[in-house]
Amino acid sequence: MGANELLAEIEAIGRTAAGGYTRTAWDAPTMELRDWFAGQASALGLELDEDGNGNQIAWWTGRGWGDGDDALLIGSHLDSVYSGGPLDGPLGVASALAAVAELKASGWQPPRPIAVANFTDEEGARFGVACIGSRLASGAMAADAALALRDQDGNSLAEVMAARGRDPRAAGPAAWLHRIGRFVELHVEQGRWLAPNEAAVGVATAIWPHGRYRLDFCGQGNHAGATAMADRHDPMLTYAATVLAARELAVGGGQRATMGRVQVDPGSTNSIPSRVTAWLDARAETEPALDALVSALIARAEQAASGDGVSMEFTAESTTPAVSFDAGLRDRIAALIDAPVLATGAGHDAGILAAVLPTAMLFVRNPTGISHAPEESSTPSDIDAGVAALTAVVKDLAGEAR
Amino acid sequence: MGANELLAEIEAIGRTAAGGYTRTAWDAPTMELRDWFAGQASALGLELDEDGNGNQIAWWTGRGWGDGDDALLIGSHLDSVYSGGPLDGPLGVASALAAVAELKASGWQPPRPIAVANFTDEEGARFGVACIGSRLASGAMAADAALALRDQDGNSLAEVMAARGRDPRAAGPAAWLHRIGRFVELHVEQGRWLAPNEAAVGVATAIWPHGRYRLDFCGQGNHAGATAMADRHDPMLTYAATVLAARELAVGGGQRATMGRVQVDPGSTNSIPSRVTAWLDARAETEPALDALVSALIARAEQAASGDGVSMEFTAESTTPAVSFDAGLRDRIAALIDAPVLATGAGHDAGILAAVLPTAMLFVRNPTGISHAPEESSTPSDIDAGVAALTAVVKDLAGEAR
Repeated sequence: MGANELLAEIEAIGRTAAGGYTRTAWDAPTMELRDWFAGQASALGLELDEDGNGNQIAWWTGRGWGDGDDALLIGSHLDSVYSGGPLDGPLGVASALAAVAELKASGWQPPRPIAVANFTDEEGARFGVACIGSRLASGAMAADAALALRDQDGNSLAEVMAARGRDPRAAGPAAWLHRIGRFVELHVEQGRWLAPNEAAVGVATAIWPHGRYRLDFCGQGNHAGATAMADRHDPMLTYAATVLAARELAVGGGQRATMGRVQVDPGSTNSIPSRVTAWLDARAETEPALDALVSALIARAEQAASGDGVSMEFTAESTTPAVSFDAGLRDRIAALIDAPVLATGAGHDAGILAAVLPTAMLFVRNPTGISHAPEESSTPSDIDAGVAALTAVVKDLAGEAR
Repeated sequence: MGANELLAEIEAIGRTAAGGYTRTAWDAPTMELRDWFAGQASALGLELDEDGNGNQIAWWTGRGWGDGDDALLIGSHLDSVYSGGPLDGPLGVASALAAVAELKASGWQPPRPIAVANFTDEEGARFGVACIGSRLASGAMAADAALALRDQDGNSLAEVMAARGRDPRAAGPAAWLHRIGRFVELHVEQGRWLAPNEAAVGVATAIWPHGRYRLDFCGQGNHAGATAMADRHDPMLTYAATVLAARELAVGGGQRATMGRVQVDPGSTNSIPSRVTAWLDARAETEPALDALVSALIARAEQAASGDGVSMEFTAESTTPAVSFDAGLRDRIAALIDAPVLATGAGHDAGILAAVLPTAMLFVRNPTGISHAPEESSTPSDIDAGVAALTAVVKDLAGEAR
């Protein structure tokens, strides 16, 4: 089956009334997608493994192959942000399955094993930390820390995994990773660079460093009608000043800062809030630039808090360093498929695995650049071009004699 | 039983982990409080009625009294905002029950009927409109409009009432109101005027006009890392600018504006929101001043929305005109109990009923002025002073020969 047909098979799973997708780690839609992935792997004659972190790895191996070395990993993830789009990352999983199908149908016998991955919880929508599956598998995050993360209903990852029949004690570094020599992840483009550059497919050079931070603003809850403006300690005011400061600083420095999540206590129309908890997503071209952006924002938020009689606490919930993809692999792929190279501000499992093995990414053109939203799209012909590129890459890399 | 003892009986009902109270219309805690009120009324020998809106009215009537005219109503409400305090409005209900108990114990026989009210959903925390019980009873709000209101889980008031065994078709103007000649509501002070003026009890002159408004900011959801700042249509930025403009305008005009409730869609750390829905609570000394405040804020919000490439819709969800309490009744009570008079920015059922009958309010000193928050308090001796004042008022007003 082609990638467009595979995506059509899952288009109803986790779909929201507004046409977006909510598929968060271990929820009912992602459980259904796991079953779908297992069925597709089986139909292609792949052997499915699931590691202790929930990552699904489907192996194309066979007689005469060693199990121990230099397999090629392809694939991506099937979870989404809340109300996300259809392609981030199902396009990468569907394209990997389609490439394997095409190569199998052609009668090609790869000299090296090939594995297709569905990584668990790439988006971090539910537990607040992105790429938990690849972080755990590669040892970038300790199992205890991950298992203690809680979702918005207060359930820990350990509890959620146990409720889905998984043993949380099995979470941690994954043995399968030692069998992998290289990883290539195909992904829908986020942002809009390929369209103006008239290319259907591009190759990644780097991922910007990225941090997620929590800001807790504490004031004094009070009556909205009876409390004079001068007597207030309203943390919503400090939050609002911080939101505007984040934009100002990011625009000024050519970086990116977003405050897309906020919780207000008590959250009543006629109450001055006692507490506002907000999250900052910040990215910059380099790590020093990211540090400078975040430090400047903390200073601005503290200044606003002081003026409002509000206290502030700042917590780095996760930070991801800059990733430079393997230059040799990148240049080899770009030459092979004649594609341009570009950097991205978006994080990926490929960015995590790049720390432990040569990794590359392919991006498929997104005409609007919109991602993490229902409007995220690629054309069917660009999706086919992405599969063709990935197929050529697989044939080249897994076709090397051992 | 005294008011302090009555309040102690209900101090565990609806209490939050942080020591506040969440008792919203028709939820489990307010159902328990209804039962408690019915038990107290029964213990005092009062006859309990519940009207089609859920208002509980407990009657002190007896042989030789006419049913039709000029009863004195006292009481308040037992619901709260989310994470509110213990006294707004249980202090008024407890004080009314304590005053009746004291007068009954003294052997006094009132020439006029006395009724004690527990009004339903004064705070409007659940359905967004304050004083639904008194608005429906007095005809200030149409039953159809009230019954169609929905809580945050999407349940309509009609559905919620039906689930509690009430017939929503019975909602609307209440017959009992025709039996009432005057209403006196005792309430904890909100704001801080009595403490610096060294008075335990005060008498209300007026309630500021008040509006609750919804602002819907719609932008374009997108990826927080991959979308350049210049390409964004981020409604959180427009919301933040509006929050700060609301403060600036309210401070400049000596009015009050609060934005204590906000919902973000999708609300993910790594997504630029597609929509932010926010609520404004605005109050001013006069209706023209309130109109001017709100108009100026709409203009500022539209300006910010235009700059951010975001659309904005503004909806007045409820507006309550200025209330001037009956001057004769106010002066009579102030002279009787030798108390100062003051205005308030907080709305009350007494403000709704003031449109249809002579109404007065007593305020009991709140040393910090904090209300709608766990820290809301009065001292036991000030609570006793409030009950003594209310008892004197009841004896005076219901003691008039008919």
